[in-house]
Amino acid sequence: MSSLATHLRFVLSRTSHPGNIGSAARAIRTMGFDRLVLAAPQRYPHPQVEAMAAGADDVLAKLTVHADVRDAIADCTLAFGLSARRRGIALRELTPREAAGEIAAALRQPVEVALLFGNEQSGLDNDELLLCHAMVRIPSVADFSSLNLAQAVQVMAYELRLALQDESIAPPAAHDPPAAAAEMEEFYRHLFATLRAIDFHKGRAAMTIEQRLRRLFQRAQPDSRELRVLHGILADAERMARLAHGKDGA
Amino acid sequence: MSSLATHLRFVLSRTSHPGNIGSAARAIRTMGFDRLVLAAPQRYPHPQVEAMAAGADDVLAKLTVHADVRDAIADCTLAFGLSARRRGIALRELTPREAAGEIAAALRQPVEVALLFGNEQSGLDNDELLLCHAMVRIPSVADFSSLNLAQAVQVMAYELRLALQDESIAPPAAHDPPAAAAEMEEFYRHLFATLRAIDFHKGRAAMTIEQRLRRLFQRAQPDSRELRVLHGILADAERMARLAHGKDGA
Repeated sequence: MSSLATHLRFVLSRTSHPGNIGSAARAIRTMGFDRLVLAAPQRYPHPQVEAMAAGADDVLAKLTVHADVRDAIADCTLAFGLSARRRGIALRELTPREAAGEIAAALRQPVEVALLFGNEQSGLDNDELLLCHAMVRIPSVADFSSLNLAQAVQVMAYELRLALQDESIAPPAAHDPPAAAAEMEEFYRHLFATLRAIDFHKGRAAMTIEQRLRRLFQRAQPDSRELRVLHGILADAERMARLAHGKDGA
Repeated sequence: MSSLATHLRFVLSRTSHPGNIGSAARAIRTMGFDRLVLAAPQRYPHPQVEAMAAGADDVLAKLTVHADVRDAIADCTLAFGLSARRRGIALRELTPREAAGEIAAALRQPVEVALLFGNEQSGLDNDELLLCHAMVRIPSVADFSSLNLAQAVQVMAYELRLALQDESIAPPAAHDPPAAAAEMEEFYRHLFATLRAIDFHKGRAAMTIEQRLRRLFQRAQPDSRELRVLHGILADAERMARLAHGKDGA
């Protein structure tokens, strides 16, 4: 397996069953991956992890645990989330094969990529999906659509192995690598603060607009230079608002 | 899922762990299949079967148990066997995708088809492989090649579902259609006017920044609703600039 595989992390969020963590470790190991990351696992460490990993010891040795998904993917520039159902969220929806192709292309830049898997019962929540650039839906029958967590990991790892072996998948041309998740969060903080400063909301709830703007800019995947331009624009808008409110010179 | 699926059986031979039988039932059920057949299971029935099937009750209701593989596939005209390793057996070796394509073609005749999975530790033995028309090898890394039994079933069921689907699962457009070019131009005019109003350029040439912002928003492909939000933000920034300059000049 190519060393590109080390730039991809499989993130399991709020996993209930420790056996699934071990099975996921085994699943990714068979396909040549070794980075498993846990966000707020409900039971970890636990002897079932080692039991189900069935010898995927190097994956367990490298495994890291984080307080939440945001922290787990802070240095990632691309994040895809598995989702069994369509949500009221306007994210691109990809098949496993399409997602694997895009991830393989991104890994060749190379950038850090995360593939997110939610809790066994509830999946990824909306806040977690908002951190994603696209949703991945494993095709399944309508009346029984829920794959076991480790089996979803296996299907994705399998498609990713095939995609990484496919030399014809080229990195996207275009622009500099997209900014990392932490940079994006900093931008959103600045953007939302500016909206308040210029009195954009006018008493309406901010959340719907903020989510809409997040989706727009997640889709755009700005690079660091573009983010600097956007920060500059926001700073000038804030400056105008301060002058308008008479706080600057007064 | 097409009724062709009923002509395909997943045969588990000499399975040791009853939990794997249940997990296999769930795995095939998610992909629209319902025929699981056991040949000489080591422990069956067993409560772990139901526990791991997680509601795939119709698969368990139809499940049949046979003395050996030969009996389990007696009425089949095509049988493929999963094998992790190459054996000293002159069988064609297929990838999961190739095998799924051949099986889908056979099911359309229609004939009865079997896909065989061996014991967790030892796989299919040579007598069982001799009943097969081809071997299927799931690609994996050389130093850790053994998928969990139910996960191998999941990968195959996934590929078979894709192969049996007549039309490719085209995801619906994730968000509203992107705005037309004329709307985008109107947005750029507003954006660039706002940049001047908030004194963003500070004497520098505007063109480089304007081109950079164009590339960013072209990539994002905003829809009309998103453009309205962006126009609203720009209008408020302009309002602040007017107020600021009013106070400045006053």
